[in-house]
Amino acid sequence: MNHSGVTLDEIEVGMSASLSKTLGEVDIVLYSGITGDNNPVHVDEEFAKKTRFGTRIVQGMLTAGLISAILGTRLPGTGTIYIRQDLRFKAPVKIGDTAVATVTVREVNRERKRVILDTICKVGDTIVIEGEAEVMPPSKKA
Amino acid sequence: MNHSGVTLDEIEVGMSASLSKTLGEVDIVLYSGITGDNNPVHVDEEFAKKTRFGTRIVQGMLTAGLISAILGTRLPGTGTIYIRQDLRFKAPVKIGDTAVATVTVREVNRERKRVILDTICKVGDTIVIEGEAEVMPPSKKA
Repeated sequence: MNHSGVTLDEIEVGMSASLSKTLGEVDIVLYSGITGDNNPVHVDEEFAKKTRFGTRIVQGMLTAGLISAILGTRLPGTGTIYIRQDLRFKAPVKIGDTAVATVTVREVNRERKRVILDTICKVGDTIVIEGEAEVMPPSKKA
Repeated sequence: MNHSGVTLDEIEVGMSASLSKTLGEVDIVLYSGITGDNNPVHVDEEFAKKTRFGTRIVQGMLTAGLISAILGTRLPGTGTIYIRQDLRFKAPVKIGDTAVATVTVREVNRERKRVILDTICKVGDTIVIEGEAEVMPPSKKA
């Protein structure tokens, strides 16, 4: 009824899913309130102008949240248990940029009930985050 | 003027900082909108009741955001560049739980301008996330 995604039996190496979102000022401001990350490089344009970035940038962990969103809602989807996430922050995301997160199944171990996925976020052709996730997909549809 | 935290010259192994926050319904709902992570285990109490958790749980990457907040605002603080974050999700955080994130400096390499920190989040005595961060602290105060 509430299920979207695939089960442990259905998931296969090479399956892939993407999610894109424009990360606007409202996202940065709300995320700052939720987490306490009010670093001036995210919320103070006058400060950010003088940094190497030249303008306010998005909190890296906010962009990484797109990866988590795909894992929990699309691939594997509903019922997935998040085990591990490794993130390498490669380039800044500026306010107003559209980030595209993509997860691709690299390994499936049905006995251990574990799946490893490559996880990447891009803005245009630039990789902004790369890494990998380990999850336990649901055994059956919710 | 805008600086809080320490520089590469000042940071020492063993330094530690914590940040705690009660993660309420408003955090989960706003984070769901920001990232698209509207997995029913986070936003649908009737669904979540039937899962192993028994109630709605907080998005793991939202809790992990507390780690990022400390790194960017306290230790090392303003001007820090986030290089890498590894996260292992060990236990669920329920809506209304208060999470305490703590970062502790484990290695300082002044030549490479890199610092490695142990990063942990707890609810009461239970570790909910553990992992490590690699950052580049600022060379001078902002």
